[in-house]
Amino acid sequence: MRIDNLQYANWSEKIFRQMSEGHVDAVHVTIAYHENFRETVLNIEQWNRWFEQFPQYIFHGRQATDVACARETGRTAIFFGLQTPNSIEDDIGLVEVLHTLGVRFMQLTYNNQSLLATGCYESQDTGITRMGKQVIREMNRVGLVVDMSHSADRSTIEAAEYSTRPIAITHANPYSWSAGLRNKKDSVIQAVVDNGGMLGFSLYPHHLDGKSDCTLENFCAMVADTAERFGVTSLGIGSDLCQDQPDSVVEWMRVGRWSKTIDYGEGSAAQAGFPPMPSWFRDNRDFPNIESGLLATGLSQTEVAGIMGGNWHRFYAENFVPQN
Amino acid sequence: MRIDNLQYANWSEKIFRQMSEGHVDAVHVTIAYHENFRETVLNIEQWNRWFEQFPQYIFHGRQATDVACARETGRTAIFFGLQTPNSIEDDIGLVEVLHTLGVRFMQLTYNNQSLLATGCYESQDTGITRMGKQVIREMNRVGLVVDMSHSADRSTIEAAEYSTRPIAITHANPYSWSAGLRNKKDSVIQAVVDNGGMLGFSLYPHHLDGKSDCTLENFCAMVADTAERFGVTSLGIGSDLCQDQPDSVVEWMRVGRWSKTIDYGEGSAAQAGFPPMPSWFRDNRDFPNIESGLLATGLSQTEVAGIMGGNWHRFYAENFVPQN
Repeated sequence: MRIDNLQYANWSEKIFRQMSEGHVDAVHVTIAYHENFRETVLNIEQWNRWFEQFPQYIFHGRQATDVACARETGRTAIFFGLQTPNSIEDDIGLVEVLHTLGVRFMQLTYNNQSLLATGCYESQDTGITRMGKQVIREMNRVGLVVDMSHSADRSTIEAAEYSTRPIAITHANPYSWSAGLRNKKDSVIQAVVDNGGMLGFSLYPHHLDGKSDCTLENFCAMVADTAERFGVTSLGIGSDLCQDQPDSVVEWMRVGRWSKTIDYGEGSAAQAGFPPMPSWFRDNRDFPNIESGLLATGLSQTEVAGIMGGNWHRFYAENFVPQN
Repeated sequence: MRIDNLQYANWSEKIFRQMSEGHVDAVHVTIAYHENFRETVLNIEQWNRWFEQFPQYIFHGRQATDVACARETGRTAIFFGLQTPNSIEDDIGLVEVLHTLGVRFMQLTYNNQSLLATGCYESQDTGITRMGKQVIREMNRVGLVVDMSHSADRSTIEAAEYSTRPIAITHANPYSWSAGLRNKKDSVIQAVVDNGGMLGFSLYPHHLDGKSDCTLENFCAMVADTAERFGVTSLGIGSDLCQDQPDSVVEWMRVGRWSKTIDYGEGSAAQAGFPPMPSWFRDNRDFPNIESGLLATGLSQTEVAGIMGGNWHRFYAENFVPQN
């Protein structure tokens, strides 16, 4: 089982073909950043057209069993996710509506304060809001996973504790390995893992030690170390692959419509665009490199299989269905 | 199996309880008239709240097997439908989105010209439009049934012939029995039936011979006659029950937001509101009256069982799933 639990590529037949060439059984794709509900539905309509056009490569994944179906048919199951809660606007009823439309992960915040919680770029972290608590309960009820990848520390710890079902950090790395606002302190990872949650390792250069120059050995040593400290069954991949995206898209991610001035976030004025990916992870065909690298650290076949997809698969099975 | 293939009540716990008291296994409910997409989603959110509040009586029906599940658990499966195509606005992608949200019937027109076809109150009927043809194909593909209850003759016949899957007139009666713009001429019924479609008999007084004073015997004789002329397996019930609705709602149905002046439609200035229901069909508990009345005409047990729900059940099984 091979699962990448976060990508936001400039989708094309080429990329869908590469997914199946890389034997990636499931990908959690971001379908919206700052889009409101109607705009998110337009993005879902675009995905429906891709499912119609490229059935030989992809189909809409809704439940864990779709991952096995993908493996059996040599295709990739596409699971929807949202990087901000803007898609539900201020309407809690949209949580169930979006789950019905296939959404399986939603971040309570992107980098900013949201209606629900605090993002990792704010100077003050006030934790989960009144609406945030209501929305977490509703997400728990319908089977929509709370994703805190871009959230601030206190908000993430509170979400892990308040949620009655496991939550996820779909794409980030330990702060102790590479200090950055988007990487996660040990106390945050511990809170997520203690409540049954998952951490997906990011391959996005700004999250890597040495950025684009990070070596495969360094990355895999960090994964092995994290497995030792937090337990190997709570770990997976969330590559944050943004393949073929024009630099205008990283600006959209960073400033959406909330600002009139550019905030370079993890980049800088001198390096405003997408950074180059590490040489050993360029696209969906390079997962075998990571697999080999992890085996070289001394992790067992079973442990590596869990990190490469088995752990996310178990998490999908437990968390995408409505609560009893 | 007992199915009512059209109701638009002022929904309440009382009405949901009456559905189960009447052993109505499935009801096709109207969830929108003139609402745009976002407003339709708000109505779905309201239904989701009712499903949460009254699980002992109702649940969301999506496929034919849900009708048997309803029967086994003593509840009613609620299937969604739209009386106008306003919910898809001018966006064909919303056909699949609404089907995913559970919509199973959509009228191509209400009484007026729509983007798709001509309604039964227009003086000129130009048939299916360019967009109408595209939308019929898309409805065929995803398993959303074309409903022509409020459409004009030519548009209905063209829809029956252009559609690659059977269509429905969910709630109307033969014009030959009770002349009115909403009832259907023989040639229209024939076109629908010839293409595998269904006619649901309406109990709405404006569609009845003698309106509110129509007798059960008269109604059932008409059903038996229609069965003889068009085939008993193409017939069902679509009561158009508007229980407990205030008169403001019939005005909303008639004029929506398209007119600044009142059009009384089937009513009149003197009788602008909802007409009283016939004494033998006041609510969901009165289906046994119709069943007895139909048996009294000489129709067989099997034939009556088909009209009371078996025929719609077969139609659901064949038409709610995506095309191969």
